[in-house]
Amino acid sequence: MTLTSARTVPGVLELLPAEQIAFQDMLDTIRRNYERFGFLPIETPVMEFSEVLLTKQGGETERQVYFVQSTGALEQGGRPELALRFDLTVPLARYVAEHEHALSFPFRRYQMQRVYRGERAQRGRFREFYQCDIDVIGKDSLSVRYDAEMPAVIYSVFRDLDIGPFQIQLNNRKLMRGYFESLGIADEQQAGVLREVDKLDKHGEEAVRAVLAGPGHGLGDGAVDRIMSFIGVRSQDHADALARLDALQGSGARFEQGRAELREVLGLIRAFGVPESHYALNLSIARGLDYYTGTVYETRLVQHPQIGSICSGGRYDDLAGSYTKSHLPGVGISIGATRLFWQLREAGLLGPVQSTVQVLVTMMDEAQLPAYLALAAQLRGAGIATEAVMEPSKLARQFRHADRAGIRFVVVLGPDELARDMVTLKDMRKQEQFQVPRGELVKTLRVELEQATAMARMGRG
Amino acid sequence: MTLTSARTVPGVLELLPAEQIAFQDMLDTIRRNYERFGFLPIETPVMEFSEVLLTKQGGETERQVYFVQSTGALEQGGRPELALRFDLTVPLARYVAEHEHALSFPFRRYQMQRVYRGERAQRGRFREFYQCDIDVIGKDSLSVRYDAEMPAVIYSVFRDLDIGPFQIQLNNRKLMRGYFESLGIADEQQAGVLREVDKLDKHGEEAVRAVLAGPGHGLGDGAVDRIMSFIGVRSQDHADALARLDALQGSGARFEQGRAELREVLGLIRAFGVPESHYALNLSIARGLDYYTGTVYETRLVQHPQIGSICSGGRYDDLAGSYTKSHLPGVGISIGATRLFWQLREAGLLGPVQSTVQVLVTMMDEAQLPAYLALAAQLRGAGIATEAVMEPSKLARQFRHADRAGIRFVVVLGPDELARDMVTLKDMRKQEQFQVPRGELVKTLRVELEQATAMARMGRG
Repeated sequence: MTLTSARTVPGVLELLPAEQIAFQDMLDTIRRNYERFGFLPIETPVMEFSEVLLTKQGGETERQVYFVQSTGALEQGGRPELALRFDLTVPLARYVAEHEHALSFPFRRYQMQRVYRGERAQRGRFREFYQCDIDVIGKDSLSVRYDAEMPAVIYSVFRDLDIGPFQIQLNNRKLMRGYFESLGIADEQQAGVLREVDKLDKHGEEAVRAVLAGPGHGLGDGAVDRIMSFIGVRSQDHADALARLDALQGSGARFEQGRAELREVLGLIRAFGVPESHYALNLSIARGLDYYTGTVYETRLVQHPQIGSICSGGRYDDLAGSYTKSHLPGVGISIGATRLFWQLREAGLLGPVQSTVQVLVTMMDEAQLPAYLALAAQLRGAGIATEAVMEPSKLARQFRHADRAGIRFVVVLGPDELARDMVTLKDMRKQEQFQVPRGELVKTLRVELEQATAMARMGRG
Repeated sequence: MTLTSARTVPGVLELLPAEQIAFQDMLDTIRRNYERFGFLPIETPVMEFSEVLLTKQGGETERQVYFVQSTGALEQGGRPELALRFDLTVPLARYVAEHEHALSFPFRRYQMQRVYRGERAQRGRFREFYQCDIDVIGKDSLSVRYDAEMPAVIYSVFRDLDIGPFQIQLNNRKLMRGYFESLGIADEQQAGVLREVDKLDKHGEEAVRAVLAGPGHGLGDGAVDRIMSFIGVRSQDHADALARLDALQGSGARFEQGRAELREVLGLIRAFGVPESHYALNLSIARGLDYYTGTVYETRLVQHPQIGSICSGGRYDDLAGSYTKSHLPGVGISIGATRLFWQLREAGLLGPVQSTVQVLVTMMDEAQLPAYLALAAQLRGAGIATEAVMEPSKLARQFRHADRAGIRFVVVLGPDELARDMVTLKDMRKQEQFQVPRGELVKTLRVELEQATAMARMGRG
């Protein structure tokens, strides 16, 4: 028989079990924190009607969409009726519009699912990747206070992910556009200027200066200087952030509204208990062009700036204008978990392999299989994840399997142990082994496993 | 602006948050049990190369496949290169063949993902649904002992799901085919007979009898009687199962091998600690035609037989013959979680709404927002899922929100409480409220939440 080559489609991140466990751990930590802040889960289908998905977006997004057709539809020809979601925001808009009367507002939802983009295959670019989003959606209005809740969630997530020091950076689109306005840059010119500002990290200050002063924008030296000094603002601590806001030389209603919002948001971030080392102003953050209308966020690993923002988002005026006449303002953030995991792996920031399996019950004597299975059943009944060896092999080989798989504890039940109603327990990490009375095994393991978890949290696992 | 109608594609189960929480709970319970038995997680991409996905299957399956094309590929025309997975077995085969040298065997994996089938839209039929699979894959060989582990996992999962009494039913394809052989039914005739036997539940005994005796199969009355009495075998308890096996009047190597396997599997199921009320022989189970080669399983809710099997699977000879020359026998089971959830909902078997949010911190006086946020931060820091009210409204309305959303505990921090460093805690379920010193709130809530969880487990929530 001819064999078909077993290969995954390019541009996806398929993991081996040990890596999958680490990835699942990351997702669990994110979810736990989203739930801790009172966000409710939803999931939407991977497919949406093409006309629903592509109502607003054009250009880039539409070119990257994956279309879906059943065998029947394919045979009939014609444009595909279905497409795969490319983010979680459009499905959220459709969901909220469709179920509006069954939801209570402000609607606080989290959603952690994969999204699809027909990107050109490229290192670190994925065609399938997880997004982990939270949004708060108001009906008619939504207090700016919710803008302060997002950094509190971000802080809590990345503190628990324990991947090194990080900083949440804030800006406000009203502040930024109001500032441009007070420099005499008209509304229709601002999109172009924002687009250049967005390139600051990639292209550097000189390049951005040159373009702003060049024929396309034609800004005078004074205006360019003031823009560069505005987008250069970074704060050191809480008081410094407020002082820098106060010192900004802008004017006009939009500018002042942006400034007032940022002040309130900064104050509440502190009230949420976020340490001031973990948030700062960064007035260069623009986050794209049209969508966001108020507060915007990015999050950076202090020791790995090259990774870029690992959690971004912001405030928008109207979520679902394409589907409903209701006015639904919102604020939200997104963590691109697949890309983050890949980057952490590349940077060597993932911890040692740790299996979901906590205990391996070895097989010393095949005739004693029922005794091994009873022991495994006892551990499982106590909630301890246990693999039982089912086929005979050398004990050394069974230990090697535990070692390679990252299984921390190995249990041996030999004739000697059986006779004395004891169990030999080996800690593979510490390379220590000791005997425990059978009746105390569960208790002993619980203590050991709790200690192991606590040590791992302290980075000393 | 013209509005686009916000609607989901037909044939998917999209849930409101309260239902999503219940569904997520079901998935978590399944996963916890899979991990408890030492299965390792994998996830595969939703898309596979069409040639990889459609290598074996033809007919029905191929007609139900969803094909995927990026915008670029669509413009170029031609057959779609990609398709959505329609089960988790083909992706597992591809995964094991692709990563064979990086995996350790027996490879124990669990996988809980959605699959896609272009079914005709029909009540209770889904085009997108979760499958929750476990499989053990051996290299070259795999002990029949693993066949006994599957019912142990099934027992553990459905005990924890707590959806009423259930029974795991077993048969063995070797036993069944060997029995047919000893009736003189040739190998090539057996598939047809099995197909009829598979219809027993749907069509009833008389109809099956008539077809077997009819022109298509042309079996004599004696053979039909013996087939009907074979497939009528159901055991009452463990001893009865062994006795009924002993009493079977078949012959030949295949028959005897099947009988020996079932005996061993029954013995080990008991050693795994599965109560004998929860497993039985059901010699009518055939589970399709070609795939399974040994033990086969189905699982039924005793009080809801109309729901059919809620967890099925079996032993197969070779997982990945299309992709690799390695011989990879395996055994596995699958829970169709979306369909199960839908059926439980239809049957009114889902418990009361219970939010992931455990505590609502109310807003009595807007000026005290920082105090409310600090309180919420304290609860969240202790791992308690907490929603804080961020915008002022009448306290009664805030309580109503908690009540509707299924949030169990509500915290009130009024001027009186603030002055005395106390907190008022209301249990919405019991409609009791009491005051707690601020410093003891976390401890008190932990005790209350643990009690609530314990009571819910005992079905008295």
